[in-house]
Amino acid sequence: MIEPLALALAGRLLFSKEIMATAKHSAQSEKIRHSASHVMAEAVQSLFPDAKFGIGPVIEDGFYYDFELTRSMTPEDLPLIESKMAETIASDVAFFQEEVDKEEARRIFAHQPYKLELIDELPDEQVTIYRQGSFTDLCKGPHVGSTGEIKAFKLLSIAGAYWRGDEHRPMLQRIYGVAFETKEGLEHHLEKLAEAAKRDHRKLGKELDLFSFHEEAGPGLVHWHPKGAVVRRIIEDFWIEEHTKRGYEIVYTPHIAKLDLWKTSGHWELYHENLYPPMDVEGQEYLIKPMNCPAHILMYKTRLRSYRELPIRWAELGTVYRFERSGVLHGLTRVRGFTQDDAHIFCRSDQLEDEVVGVMEFAFFMMRTFGFEEYEIVLATRPEKYAGTVEMWEEATETLERALKRLGLRYQIDPGGGVFYGPKIDTKLQDALGRAWQGPTNQVDFNLPQRFEVNYVGADGVEHPVVMVHRTVLGSMERFLGCLIEHYGGAFPVWLAPVQAVVIPIADRHLEYAFQMEAELKASGMRAQVDARSERMNFKIREAQLQKIPYMLIMGDKEMEAAMVSVRLRSGEDLGRQTVEAFKSMAKEAITQKSLDFCSDI
Amino acid sequence: MIEPLALALAGRLLFSKEIMATAKHSAQSEKIRHSASHVMAEAVQSLFPDAKFGIGPVIEDGFYYDFELTRSMTPEDLPLIESKMAETIASDVAFFQEEVDKEEARRIFAHQPYKLELIDELPDEQVTIYRQGSFTDLCKGPHVGSTGEIKAFKLLSIAGAYWRGDEHRPMLQRIYGVAFETKEGLEHHLEKLAEAAKRDHRKLGKELDLFSFHEEAGPGLVHWHPKGAVVRRIIEDFWIEEHTKRGYEIVYTPHIAKLDLWKTSGHWELYHENLYPPMDVEGQEYLIKPMNCPAHILMYKTRLRSYRELPIRWAELGTVYRFERSGVLHGLTRVRGFTQDDAHIFCRSDQLEDEVVGVMEFAFFMMRTFGFEEYEIVLATRPEKYAGTVEMWEEATETLERALKRLGLRYQIDPGGGVFYGPKIDTKLQDALGRAWQGPTNQVDFNLPQRFEVNYVGADGVEHPVVMVHRTVLGSMERFLGCLIEHYGGAFPVWLAPVQAVVIPIADRHLEYAFQMEAELKASGMRAQVDARSERMNFKIREAQLQKIPYMLIMGDKEMEAAMVSVRLRSGEDLGRQTVEAFKSMAKEAITQKSLDFCSDI
Repeated sequence: MIEPLALALAGRLLFSKEIMATAKHSAQSEKIRHSASHVMAEAVQSLFPDAKFGIGPVIEDGFYYDFELTRSMTPEDLPLIESKMAETIASDVAFFQEEVDKEEARRIFAHQPYKLELIDELPDEQVTIYRQGSFTDLCKGPHVGSTGEIKAFKLLSIAGAYWRGDEHRPMLQRIYGVAFETKEGLEHHLEKLAEAAKRDHRKLGKELDLFSFHEEAGPGLVHWHPKGAVVRRIIEDFWIEEHTKRGYEIVYTPHIAKLDLWKTSGHWELYHENLYPPMDVEGQEYLIKPMNCPAHILMYKTRLRSYRELPIRWAELGTVYRFERSGVLHGLTRVRGFTQDDAHIFCRSDQLEDEVVGVMEFAFFMMRTFGFEEYEIVLATRPEKYAGTVEMWEEATETLERALKRLGLRYQIDPGGGVFYGPKIDTKLQDALGRAWQGPTNQVDFNLPQRFEVNYVGADGVEHPVVMVHRTVLGSMERFLGCLIEHYGGAFPVWLAPVQAVVIPIADRHLEYAFQMEAELKASGMRAQVDARSERMNFKIREAQLQKIPYMLIMGDKEMEAAMVSVRLRSGEDLGRQTVEAFKSMAKEAITQKSLDFCSDI
Repeated sequence: MIEPLALALAGRLLFSKEIMATAKHSAQSEKIRHSASHVMAEAVQSLFPDAKFGIGPVIEDGFYYDFELTRSMTPEDLPLIESKMAETIASDVAFFQEEVDKEEARRIFAHQPYKLELIDELPDEQVTIYRQGSFTDLCKGPHVGSTGEIKAFKLLSIAGAYWRGDEHRPMLQRIYGVAFETKEGLEHHLEKLAEAAKRDHRKLGKELDLFSFHEEAGPGLVHWHPKGAVVRRIIEDFWIEEHTKRGYEIVYTPHIAKLDLWKTSGHWELYHENLYPPMDVEGQEYLIKPMNCPAHILMYKTRLRSYRELPIRWAELGTVYRFERSGVLHGLTRVRGFTQDDAHIFCRSDQLEDEVVGVMEFAFFMMRTFGFEEYEIVLATRPEKYAGTVEMWEEATETLERALKRLGLRYQIDPGGGVFYGPKIDTKLQDALGRAWQGPTNQVDFNLPQRFEVNYVGADGVEHPVVMVHRTVLGSMERFLGCLIEHYGGAFPVWLAPVQAVVIPIADRHLEYAFQMEAELKASGMRAQVDARSERMNFKIREAQLQKIPYMLIMGDKEMEAAMVSVRLRSGEDLGRQTVEAFKSMAKEAITQKSLDFCSDI
């Protein structure tokens, strides 16, 4: 039922070098970044003599430092701080390490309340400090020998951050910066950041009129405008079609249910901080659903199921709600309401391997269709706290490994990284900029079948617990769309483009022909529209390019006389005049083939 | 953009005679039913001497009476009561009317607390009582002359009912009965009831495995099983396609939003008893949405809209949640969570008439597609409390009337029956048994544009409020599916049938050919399955008929040799052997034509 993908995939599933590099950092880069953080702190100290210092750790590609200052910093402060830093670097000041006892440390940091708090919590009586020039920090190191080793850095932004991430503690000011071993490394990184900023789905979401968020409705709740909804809908239709081909059945379940279901499942106890508060209805507590599983289980249990009926594969585009602090929300990729492209497979343990293989092949088929060719695959194994028995875990983990090997896939193992209910395989996608995105997941569950007594009647006439698989092949509609927008830079392939063709009449006398063309394209199933505004042609072409519309059909006297169209691509490429039939067949081909050629047109 | 339906409809939109008859009742039927209610009460009095009497009014087709009794009645009591009633009727006892003052009435009903309560509330000092035989009732009448005039009655059921519908008052026992002027009338009605019971969507929903409700999840929350979900999905896809053709755009909005939106809209104040309780999130109250309007308004307001952009038509299959007491819930037709096939039209007032005509034509197109040919149309006008000005109401009501007249539709006026925010046109459908179902609605709204300041910039450069239309063309997916199931008796037309063809191999040696056939049908887009169980052919045919599967393809030696199929319809009709191509083209025709021929096959 599912196409053999193993060979096709085996050669391609190399980890992105960038992901690997990012994951490890080199030791030298780490030292440079950490040292740059101290140099920045020294610069801030000289500009803000009353500054109180928080912490200044290394992060991916760079560093930050948190400060309490007497006034709010503005972006204009960053060049000043940078030039102070450049002075320190030019002077090539040495870093000195020292060991002092806590009493001495308290004396050194007598006017630094945050450092004092940290000192109190350090376990050893001896603590390490680092000095360079006039700046001293409580710090384990290591650092570079002297500031001259910091060859390439840049400060990026200022943000607010609660001391220790606690909203009840003071809000400090944080400066983010990046630092690299070479100027080339820094430049490459800044180019990537600029490209990422251009592709930011929050920015493109507004420019392309795809979706909006509203403070009046609440943060993290996506409102899909017509153009975004078209893209989502096409993906959903495709998703349903492909699921049906693979023996899945679609179901719908309600968005609220009695809280007791999540008490039975164990989720209330473990995750109630991430759930919405219950609603009291006729003396019963109801919860807005954080997941679809219990509803699928209730439907499964409406009758006895025989071993012959398994596997049962139920898929739902189920919109779920989970509470996230408003501070961590981010566009479509971190939201409060999201539509999982969810499915539950109820199977026997002897069917698990084939099911996992099927799910992985399916997920890769989906990813390839959207233009993702490189993945990182992680198999997460038994954590300290777990449901089921060690034997169940071992058997299932071995089954997952067998499935991965059958597919010829390279994978990492995350020991103890499984969720409490069973081992899982997570897939991260790499986008056009080499960034990793959380993608499909494939999770075995021993917990729910046990807690809800989800059984089948075996050939032996006895009831056995099913094995349940939770899986997505996209992740969620919201996150996947966010990822797609950035991957394509908003220039969706023709089959997904909200508007596939814009018809641009050169003068008013071409309007009628333009509307005829629009009607003809619509009749053939295309999403077309006329730009009938009284604007110049070049203005309309530029607008269509900004809207990343794949095809622009220019209509002038010559086109009208010859009953043809002049076709321009959003890349600027001019395909010249062609017959309407030729254009339609070219577009149709791109649509039915789900061609990705167009994604480089931006 | 919308097909001209006016002429096609004009001839057909006669009111169903049954609906009209039901709406009015004949005066004689009313008297018979009311009198039967008293005769029943007398019978109950003789069987339960301590009975306390509530009220016993006439209802559609019959009557009921509420009693407080010393024990619970069972269905076995009904024949006893019926035979007592038959005795009274055979004796042809006269009804006497009497006028007494309240003091006398209180003496007569001294042991009847419910009657005493009613007497206290009567406005006049003189009250009317009726007597027949040993039974006296507080009653305005009118009644028949004597019990002999009750020629045809039947008691149907017992139910619990709170005194005066108040859950804080005692629960009484209610007996429902029906009565007609003639035995034929009664028999016809009982046949219709039996047919309705066979078609009950709650019963068929289980038998056909379409959906379920779960006490564990909460009442009134539909869980759509794969077969029900297929039907819903096909209707939704059709709905989206037809909306797109008519210039609607599809949107998606979240299921929760801050309560403040519904305070602004006025719904919280007016309808909070029908809303779910708010959830407190980070100090803000959130509501699970009872309607989609505010979210559409927020999207509309993301930028200034010009008069040239209007009308904007935004459609959403939006699942909303409204609280209903568990006692009034009923299958799919009265639920707590339902998916409105909602759309909002933002237009100028000079566009309203065309928009209303478009919506009505669209709704009738949808209804006809599903096999509903008769409707009742009601135009509801300004109530006592209303938003907007009298002028706005008059203008809009006139516009609605003009639209109805342009369509050549007959309609009733419900004076003052509009919702507070604007006049509306409701359509009731008549199903195969002549019963009326609440269908599409078309509502003008002056309130929300005002409260949310929903404006457009006119040709004059000034902002004007839009006119908003709320409309559905089906009603809700749940209620419409409930209605469809009963209308078709579960025998969906081929295009909607969850399984369109079952392949029935006669013996095991035909299995392979059967599976080939299934694969071939699936490849051509049909929903087909093999019944591979080791059961006799006749058993499988009977099962397929019970499952109301349109086509049964019987596979034996002859069929295999000739590469043909023997086709049977669910009606039992045998179409004989035909080539696979011939069958596929017949089925394809029925599917693409959305043929209704099959709905009489049950």
